[in-house]
Amino acid sequence: MKSGFSRVGIVGAGQLGRMLALAAYPLGLSPLLLDKSADAPAAALAPMLVGDLEDPALLAELAARSDVLTFDWENISGTALAPLEPLIAIRPSAAALAVSQDRLLEKALFARLKMPVAPHARVDEPADLERAIRRLGAPGILKTRRLGYDGKGQYVVRTATDAESAWGQLGSSRVGAAGLIYERFQSFSREVSIIGARSVDGRMVAYPLSANTHVGGILRYATAPYVNRKLERLARIYLRRVLDELDYVGVLAIEFFVVNGRLIANEMAPRVHNSGHWTIEGCITSQFENHLRAICGLPLGSTRPLGATAMINFIGNLPDRARLLELEGLSFHDYGKAARPGRKLGHCTILKSAAGDRNEALANALKLIEWT
Amino acid sequence: MKSGFSRVGIVGAGQLGRMLALAAYPLGLSPLLLDKSADAPAAALAPMLVGDLEDPALLAELAARSDVLTFDWENISGTALAPLEPLIAIRPSAAALAVSQDRLLEKALFARLKMPVAPHARVDEPADLERAIRRLGAPGILKTRRLGYDGKGQYVVRTATDAESAWGQLGSSRVGAAGLIYERFQSFSREVSIIGARSVDGRMVAYPLSANTHVGGILRYATAPYVNRKLERLARIYLRRVLDELDYVGVLAIEFFVVNGRLIANEMAPRVHNSGHWTIEGCITSQFENHLRAICGLPLGSTRPLGATAMINFIGNLPDRARLLELEGLSFHDYGKAARPGRKLGHCTILKSAAGDRNEALANALKLIEWT
Repeated sequence: MKSGFSRVGIVGAGQLGRMLALAAYPLGLSPLLLDKSADAPAAALAPMLVGDLEDPALLAELAARSDVLTFDWENISGTALAPLEPLIAIRPSAAALAVSQDRLLEKALFARLKMPVAPHARVDEPADLERAIRRLGAPGILKTRRLGYDGKGQYVVRTATDAESAWGQLGSSRVGAAGLIYERFQSFSREVSIIGARSVDGRMVAYPLSANTHVGGILRYATAPYVNRKLERLARIYLRRVLDELDYVGVLAIEFFVVNGRLIANEMAPRVHNSGHWTIEGCITSQFENHLRAICGLPLGSTRPLGATAMINFIGNLPDRARLLELEGLSFHDYGKAARPGRKLGHCTILKSAAGDRNEALANALKLIEWT
Repeated sequence: MKSGFSRVGIVGAGQLGRMLALAAYPLGLSPLLLDKSADAPAAALAPMLVGDLEDPALLAELAARSDVLTFDWENISGTALAPLEPLIAIRPSAAALAVSQDRLLEKALFARLKMPVAPHARVDEPADLERAIRRLGAPGILKTRRLGYDGKGQYVVRTATDAESAWGQLGSSRVGAAGLIYERFQSFSREVSIIGARSVDGRMVAYPLSANTHVGGILRYATAPYVNRKLERLARIYLRRVLDELDYVGVLAIEFFVVNGRLIANEMAPRVHNSGHWTIEGCITSQFENHLRAICGLPLGSTRPLGATAMINFIGNLPDRARLLELEGLSFHDYGKAARPGRKLGHCTILKSAAGDRNEALANALKLIEWT
C-alpha cells in the first residue's frame, strides 16, 4: 500500500535533480525529469523530457505524468507555472518561487517578518545608485535582482567613484534590466545557513546550522553542525516564520551573515541547497529525502546529525577519485558533468561520527581544499 | 581525472542491481544492466539490455560496453562466461561463482581451508541418501546442490523414514538432477554472517558481524553489529582464507551457524548480501559502494559502524510507508517490485547512532516485525 504521492516531476535535471532522484527510488517514488540538455547530470537515472524548462507543452506533459511538481532550478516564471496550478500540486508553490527569484521581494519579506537584513535600496537607474551610495555608504554590492547565483550578477562598489562602472557592468545587462539592488557591505565574522523542511500539514524539521566558506562567490566548503545554541535558536525561529508565511511545502534554505553575534538574513533558496549536501552522510534523513517526503505528503524524517562533517565542493575540475577515496570516512559525489571553469562538478563529505574527531574532520577538509 | 574502471556491466537488475546502481552514480560510475524483464527493479535507474542472462550475444554486448562485469545474480554458468574472460575483467571471477553455485564444492572449499562445516554427504541416488542418513544420523536436510536460495530446494528429513519422500520431492526435480547434498541438522544458538570486500591488490575490509533470523528459510531480520570479539575474529580469519584462496575481487558474504561457541560455515554468496543491507545507513561505506570500489580498482572504504542497526525485510507485501516513516531513525527501501507471496519487496533499517539505544532499535524492529 502506497500512501502519499509517488510520481514526482522535477523541473531541471542538474546535480540537485540527480541527488533527488537517488533519494527518490528507495522511498518507492518514480522521478520524471525535464531538462534542456539530454546529457544533464540526472539524465541516466530517470526518464526525462528534453526541452526548454518553460516550454508550455513539456510542462503540461510533465504535470500530466506526475502527482507533484518540484524544482532543481527555481527560476521558473510564474507565467509558465500558472496554467499548471489548477492541475497539479506545485511544491514549493509558484508564489514561494516568485519571492525567492527577486532579491528585493526577498529582503522585503525578511523585513516584514522582523528578520534583520543589510541596509539596501532599489536601483532602477544611475541616479538611484548614486543616491543609495550616498545614503547607505560604501563599500557595498550592486546586484541584479534576478538570476544571481554563485557570485554571478554582482559588482563590488568600493567607493562612490565606482558607481558609474558598476552601473555600466550590470545596469545595461539583460538580467540587470529587470532591476538592481544596492546593499551595504556586511562585515561578517561567518556565514551560516539553516535548512529545513515543512510538510503539507505545517510540521517543520530543521537541520543543524552549517558554517559556509565562499571563494569568489561560490561555496567552497561547509562544516556542520556549526554549534552555537543562540544562533541556532534564532535561525530556527526565522526559518519557521518564512515557511509559515509562504505556506511552504518542501525544503527551504536561508543564508545568514553573523554580524556581532546577530544573524543578518542574506538570501534564501526554495529548494535543496549546496550547504546541505553534508546531510546525505551526516544525518539520518538527508535534505533530499526530506524534500521528497514533504512534497509527497509523507512524514518528515529525523534531522539528527551522526557526527561532525566537512563538505568540500569540486569547482572547475574533479580531483582524482582514487586519491580521495583513500581518506578514511570520505564519501565522493561526482555529478557527471563536463569540466568547465567555475562549474560545480561534485563534492565530497568527510564524516567523523565521534564528536571528538571534529578537528580531524576539519584538518582533512583543509588538506582536501589544498589538493583540489 | 578518473582512475579505475567507470563502466560497470551488471548481470541481473533485481534489488541488488538496483542498490548497486544507486551506489554507482556518486562514485562517477556508469552502470549498464542486463535482465530478462524490462520492468526489473533497477530498470528505471540505468540503461538496460533485455533478454536471457546467459544469451551469448547480449553478454558480449554487455562486455563490449563495459570495463568490468559483475553480478546481481550469481548463477551464471561458466560456459556462458568463458567466451568473455579474455575480453573483460569479470569480478568476482567465473571460478569463484562456480564454487558458490554448488553446495558440495562450497563445503569442500570450506573444509580444505580448515573451516568447520556440518557433516554432509553427496547424494546422487536413493541409496546414497539412505547411506548418508545411516552414517550421519537424522534430523538432517536434503538440499539441491545448485540454485537453492531463500529456502528453496530444501527438504527436512526428520527421521530415516522420510528418505523416500525427500528423494521424491527433490531427486526427480529439474534442479535436483544436478545432484543433491544431505547435511546433518545443526542445533545452533544463532546464525551470523560476515561480509567483506577484497581489492585487486589483495587488501581486505570486513564489516562487523550481523545476527540473522530466518523464517521459512528467508531472512526476516538482522541486527548489527553483533558484538562478539572471539567470533568476529574467527569469522574474519575464515573470510580472509576464502577471499585469498579464490583470488577474489569484490564483496563476499559467508553465513555461519554458532554452535557451542564455534562457527560452522553454512554457505557463501559471491555478491552483496541481504544481511549486509544495514551497511547503507549503518556504516561509512555501504557493501554496495565497497563492491563497486573493489571491482573498479578503487580504494576500499571504511566499514566502521555508525551505531546499532536493525534491518527488517518486507516479504510478500509492502507495509504502508507513511506509517513506517513516522518512526525515528527509520530508512525505507522499496525495491519497486510487484507483490507476490514469499517475494522480497523491500526492507527498512533503523539506525541508533548512540550505542546505548541498542535495545530501543531492537524494540522498534520487533514492533515492525509484528506490523509487517
